[in-house]
Amino acid sequence: MPAEPLTDLSKLCVHTITTKPWSIEEATDRYAAAGVKGVTVWRQWLDGRDIARVGERLRAAGLAVVSLCRGGFFPAVDAAGRRAAVDDNLKAIDEAEALGAPLIVLVCGAVPGLPLAEARGQIADGIAAVLDRAEQAKVRLAIEPLHPMYADSRSAVNTLAQANDLCDAMDSPWVGAAVDVYHVWWDSELEAQIERCGRAGRIFAFHVCDWRTPTVDMLNDRGLMGEGSIDVRRIRGWVEQHGFDGFNEVEIFSNRLWTMDQGEFLESIKRAYLEYT
Amino acid sequence: MPAEPLTDLSKLCVHTITTKPWSIEEATDRYAAAGVKGVTVWRQWLDGRDIARVGERLRAAGLAVVSLCRGGFFPAVDAAGRRAAVDDNLKAIDEAEALGAPLIVLVCGAVPGLPLAEARGQIADGIAAVLDRAEQAKVRLAIEPLHPMYADSRSAVNTLAQANDLCDAMDSPWVGAAVDVYHVWWDSELEAQIERCGRAGRIFAFHVCDWRTPTVDMLNDRGLMGEGSIDVRRIRGWVEQHGFDGFNEVEIFSNRLWTMDQGEFLESIKRAYLEYT
Repeated sequence: MPAEPLTDLSKLCVHTITTKPWSIEEATDRYAAAGVKGVTVWRQWLDGRDIARVGERLRAAGLAVVSLCRGGFFPAVDAAGRRAAVDDNLKAIDEAEALGAPLIVLVCGAVPGLPLAEARGQIADGIAAVLDRAEQAKVRLAIEPLHPMYADSRSAVNTLAQANDLCDAMDSPWVGAAVDVYHVWWDSELEAQIERCGRAGRIFAFHVCDWRTPTVDMLNDRGLMGEGSIDVRRIRGWVEQHGFDGFNEVEIFSNRLWTMDQGEFLESIKRAYLEYT
Repeated sequence: MPAEPLTDLSKLCVHTITTKPWSIEEATDRYAAAGVKGVTVWRQWLDGRDIARVGERLRAAGLAVVSLCRGGFFPAVDAAGRRAAVDDNLKAIDEAEALGAPLIVLVCGAVPGLPLAEARGQIADGIAAVLDRAEQAKVRLAIEPLHPMYADSRSAVNTLAQANDLCDAMDSPWVGAAVDVYHVWWDSELEAQIERCGRAGRIFAFHVCDWRTPTVDMLNDRGLMGEGSIDVRRIRGWVEQHGFDGFNEVEIFSNRLWTMDQGEFLESIKRAYLEYT
């Protein structure tokens, strides 16, 4: 059953990459002024900043820091590459701790030509290698299954079933899944896997946008909710029915929308959020 | 386990769309001269032709007619559209019968904004509506799961698991699946679903190409085997282990490769076939 329509912005979170032209300072001010209540910070927005102060400033503006994007990219062709990936994930945990972000989203990684089965094993090893540190920092890790069109180079975890399997293998309250409608909307097993994920208390994040027809760029042509084929409200109904009560995070990569006036775009996001999410 | 390397071209089939610049007559001559042994004919190659004569000419040239591409596209927004789709599939069966093609590949269809569950139901209804005629014509129907990136507009059947479920529902020796590595390579359930498909005697076709990084066009940037991330030989091993002994069909849509001299391209296909398939 679809969820009830949203009637306010109290659970609206925006990813900093959604309004890519804005710095973290500008995003902080503009989101707060627009009534956005949460923010997911992409790591590159922290470059050259005092991370703890960014977190304080966000909270002072009334924005909850929902998560840090992103860790992961564990597979590599050699041991040195895999070690570097683990180190970078430990660094991401440090950053999340400093920022006051309770969650890191993991885009798990893949390497062209590396067999998927190997990549998947390396992902499990990589998460296991950073788990103690995540627990110590009280930072949860959300495995985000990525659309199968990214299986060559971005993630060998391509369904929520796989993410659930990986969570089962990790068996830690610090490891769960991020459900991004863009990546999973097509999956005939989606409702069942959301139920499974929720039953284990592992729905850690919910990301929204839409799938446009035609999609002209495999990475940067996501749509606003309502611009495409994804029944976002139905999927929100499933995650809520199975225990999720966190923010609805608007994560849109779009060459088209990034060229808009970002203030107008943010107003469009609010409208699409209330009408279609 | 990967299959043993192929040592000859006796199971090499080429789709007419792979060498798009060639008419059916030119393809017939050039494939035969190159030692190709099978052909899958795309319907537009039959436009304006005497279909039975095309079939005779192909067989006279030593080419097995492996299948006709393509039927399907069953879902539509209204009953008239769905009826037109059924009619077109009945016409495809007529064409396959005239051509002497024992198989039609079904790209099942999807409509932007139409809920996937509805599209899936309409696909089942559509196949059921043409099944008697297929049996009468002795033309088998191969449900081809399409990559999830086509779920908006080309097929709501996106995994071999779904195709197997649909075959179970149809419960007919005339309905099986086409395994195209491009569409299914990413799937962690692939081996298990190939086994399931083979156990039921339903692996009707095997299509090969590769997934390039980066893929710059969602439709027409497929690679030659060996140019990308797909372990084609391993997947061939799985289908053969589970009973498939038909042709290996080279189906490549590529703006890049279509601009090559097609004779040279066909030689490249033969090399890639022996080296990577």
